[in-house]
Amino acid sequence: MSSQSEAVTYDLYYWPEIQGRGEFVRLAFEEAGATYVDVARLPAATGGGVDAMLRLMRGDGSALTPFAPPFVKVGDLVIGQTANVLQFLAPRLGLVAPDETSRVHAHQLMLTVADLVAEVHDTHHPVASSLYYEDQKEEAVRSARIFLRERLPKYLGYFERLLGPNRELGSYVDLALFQLIAGLRYAFPRAMQRIQASLPGLVSLFDRVATRSRIAAYLASPRRIPFNEKGLFRHYPELDAG
Amino acid sequence: MSSQSEAVTYDLYYWPEIQGRGEFVRLAFEEAGATYVDVARLPAATGGGVDAMLRLMRGDGSALTPFAPPFVKVGDLVIGQTANVLQFLAPRLGLVAPDETSRVHAHQLMLTVADLVAEVHDTHHPVASSLYYEDQKEEAVRSARIFLRERLPKYLGYFERLLGPNRELGSYVDLALFQLIAGLRYAFPRAMQRIQASLPGLVSLFDRVATRSRIAAYLASPRRIPFNEKGLFRHYPELDAG
Repeated sequence: MSSQSEAVTYDLYYWPEIQGRGEFVRLAFEEAGATYVDVARLPAATGGGVDAMLRLMRGDGSALTPFAPPFVKVGDLVIGQTANVLQFLAPRLGLVAPDETSRVHAHQLMLTVADLVAEVHDTHHPVASSLYYEDQKEEAVRSARIFLRERLPKYLGYFERLLGPNRELGSYVDLALFQLIAGLRYAFPRAMQRIQASLPGLVSLFDRVATRSRIAAYLASPRRIPFNEKGLFRHYPELDAG
Repeated sequence: MSSQSEAVTYDLYYWPEIQGRGEFVRLAFEEAGATYVDVARLPAATGGGVDAMLRLMRGDGSALTPFAPPFVKVGDLVIGQTANVLQFLAPRLGLVAPDETSRVHAHQLMLTVADLVAEVHDTHHPVASSLYYEDQKEEAVRSARIFLRERLPKYLGYFERLLGPNRELGSYVDLALFQLIAGLRYAFPRAMQRIQASLPGLVSLFDRVATRSRIAAYLASPRRIPFNEKGLFRHYPELDAG
């Protein structure tokens, strides 16, 4: 997949201390070799920081402000919602075939990834995002057990069946599936050990994406924020039923 | 908004006994005066029924099968994910302005509606979709209370600020916001009575959409499935904290 990125600078706005949903966008920029600024990770003194992000979210009442990060700014255009951002960027970055069917189907899969990501988040925050994990831990244990037994195999089995003999989809969705596997292995190492035994296509895809030159360079760089317990994929051993 | 629907028949696949996520697609077809078949609501003897839907979801291993309903079939193309379906249909049905910025921003808002819809669902199923409501009722009461106090006002306040002086967005998102208000009033009548006092734009939008001729005819027809406790928006008085 060659880069077709134009001479454009993209501003990415996302929380600076987590991979989270922003990581799907970071991976697309990295794979394409695009020039992008991860604004909230820059010092406030140079126009960066979380405040710069929140200012754009408050907006001035005239333009469409995003409901939540991540969002990107391209010229005057501000675009929010992770899957929407990727759909907008992908043809510009050479990360999807240009015909409508390819774009519609890649987006459909990305939205399915996004649904799974939301369910992963809800395993550690089943009652409310605004409550501490410790205040919903009992519910989280119950929720994660059912998620790992029913939902995760259903989702991953679906993606496995789609991969086909090349074990790649040939779009930015490959990057998203890589990130998904990376996050799931971090959060649920015991359960994933068991589940991935029947997912040779996804495991192969993961290995292939991880060794692509730009992705490998990115993963080894300080630009890749380590997984942690503030992000989407959190490792709480009591949720990893194995 | 005039209909620009082509001489195409659209097949919609969705659960036949609920409004659910399929209702956002039904409303778009109805507003556009499009010719569509709600396949799973037809008798199995004439190629309808839930089995016809599940058959397409199993697929033959070659095409992209959808992960979940709703999905539509247009010619040979099968398209899943509610917001993706609407994004595909809207330019064809005259339900969005054709320029890229309008389409990207309408989709961004539709994805935000979809996020809210998922949170509404999780108020009655916080632990797991596969468990009965009765087996997670205590958690649901706790979850719904925080949802109605924090999340719902945040989402609806966001949409309210976007509506502007015309109190319409001028795209299929108006239909989605109408459906959202309808569902929320059904599920949480006491809470909505209080919350909507500060949402004159959304209330006005609701009234205007409800009286559009094609929408009014649809709502009065047997095609509009009544809200019920199998769908997304469920009325459980104990969750309606007021």
